[in-house]
Amino acid sequence: MSARPLILVTNDDGITAPGLRTLISVMNLIGDVVVVAPDSPQSAMGHAITINSTLHMEKVIIDGKQPEYSCSGTPADCVKLAVNEILDRRPDICVSGINHGSNSSINVIYSGTMSAALEAGIESIPAIGFSLLDYNWNANFEHCKTFVETITRQVLENGLPDGVVLNVNIPNLEKNAIKGIKVCRQARANWKEEFDKRTNPMGRDYYWLSGKFVNMDKGEDTDEWALENGYVSVVPVHFDLTAHHAIQNLNTWKLNN
Amino acid sequence: MSARPLILVTNDDGITAPGLRTLISVMNLIGDVVVVAPDSPQSAMGHAITINSTLHMEKVIIDGKQPEYSCSGTPADCVKLAVNEILDRRPDICVSGINHGSNSSINVIYSGTMSAALEAGIESIPAIGFSLLDYNWNANFEHCKTFVETITRQVLENGLPDGVVLNVNIPNLEKNAIKGIKVCRQARANWKEEFDKRTNPMGRDYYWLSGKFVNMDKGEDTDEWALENGYVSVVPVHFDLTAHHAIQNLNTWKLNN
Repeated sequence: MSARPLILVTNDDGITAPGLRTLISVMNLIGDVVVVAPDSPQSAMGHAITINSTLHMEKVIIDGKQPEYSCSGTPADCVKLAVNEILDRRPDICVSGINHGSNSSINVIYSGTMSAALEAGIESIPAIGFSLLDYNWNANFEHCKTFVETITRQVLENGLPDGVVLNVNIPNLEKNAIKGIKVCRQARANWKEEFDKRTNPMGRDYYWLSGKFVNMDKGEDTDEWALENGYVSVVPVHFDLTAHHAIQNLNTWKLNN
Repeated sequence: MSARPLILVTNDDGITAPGLRTLISVMNLIGDVVVVAPDSPQSAMGHAITINSTLHMEKVIIDGKQPEYSCSGTPADCVKLAVNEILDRRPDICVSGINHGSNSSINVIYSGTMSAALEAGIESIPAIGFSLLDYNWNANFEHCKTFVETITRQVLENGLPDGVVLNVNIPNLEKNAIKGIKVCRQARANWKEEFDKRTNPMGRDYYWLSGKFVNMDKGEDTDEWALENGYVSVVPVHFDLTAHHAIQNLNTWKLNN
């Protein structure tokens, strides 16, 4: 590692998003920053990658303080392009966000912000996804800065196990109303969908996806509990989806007769 | 459960894909089939959902043997629409595929096929994603049928733990060259990206994402080992991404000073 760490910054709300600008401002306190972010919003893209069409990227100047690249792909594409085409050495850390809206519990699986962090994890780069519990474009990210800085410095100091990345969610509260940072597990929750069915001017039906978040998990060690109780939640996540606890039982099935 | 189970069938290669047609033909032996699948290929869509644009669906007739709906969204959207708007009761099982190409090891995270199965899992519906290790549109799925039928019947008979779904990959071998079905964990592997950089007729650079699959995991309990050694691999997967093994160590960090 050079004197200053090399920090790859990305997000899923697009390169002009205020949450990304806040994240960049904190990272400039810590190391040398390179930004590679989508040229347009990519929320809810999950871990999509672009294999059936081409990717473009452009070097852009936004505030002139660090190199920035605007990319036509998904957040996972941005990390792949950064690592393989843009950076001349491996970044010491990849940070994604600050997302406009929650990526707690089940949201992690739909999240473009977290897919960028996981993609870095797949490449064995320590990574963090940050999200603020406020979906507004003009959300106030000011109180996030101290938590973002503390957690990033701790990751750089302590490292992370290979393939593990952090999912950090920050409550939308006044800074001194936040009680602290809490390490958690992902709550078991889901979205109870309510499709909004409409008819277009040509008489054809269409749908808007909407829904209500339902937390079925009352555990006090979960991210949902932490957020409801005024803590910043930190969940270590990985890309090994194996349900190891189910293997023993499956081995009793009649699969080979 | 009625006398015959209600089976939701989907995929990510689109409603006309030969792999889907094979899956439907097997499911018609087992229960009452409803097909809700994307109207166009959605490979590598990960767990994307459609929140910033509208969704359309059409009832279509393809072979006339079962109700079929063609949907403008992602595989995860198809499952949400099926459960909330199309089916009048919860399906007893959701099957996705048969994918044209592998979804073993790290591919699970990029896979539209598996995102449909995981979305069903989120809704507490038992689910299976099936994939054949052949990317060709005209792949021969004939030898898959017996494995697909056996595994589906075993899931219906035994059930699955809440939120657990199966990731099934089938080698591209003659039927009697396949040694059997093996329950596995996901191998630690990744893609070593090699972007193919080109210049378009207007002089602008663009990239094709390509790469080489690298298996770093020599374990004989992995899906990659099973597939290389002539077995059908079955990995139970879930959507709890928490790296539980990392929590204890994170609790020793200086996060709250």
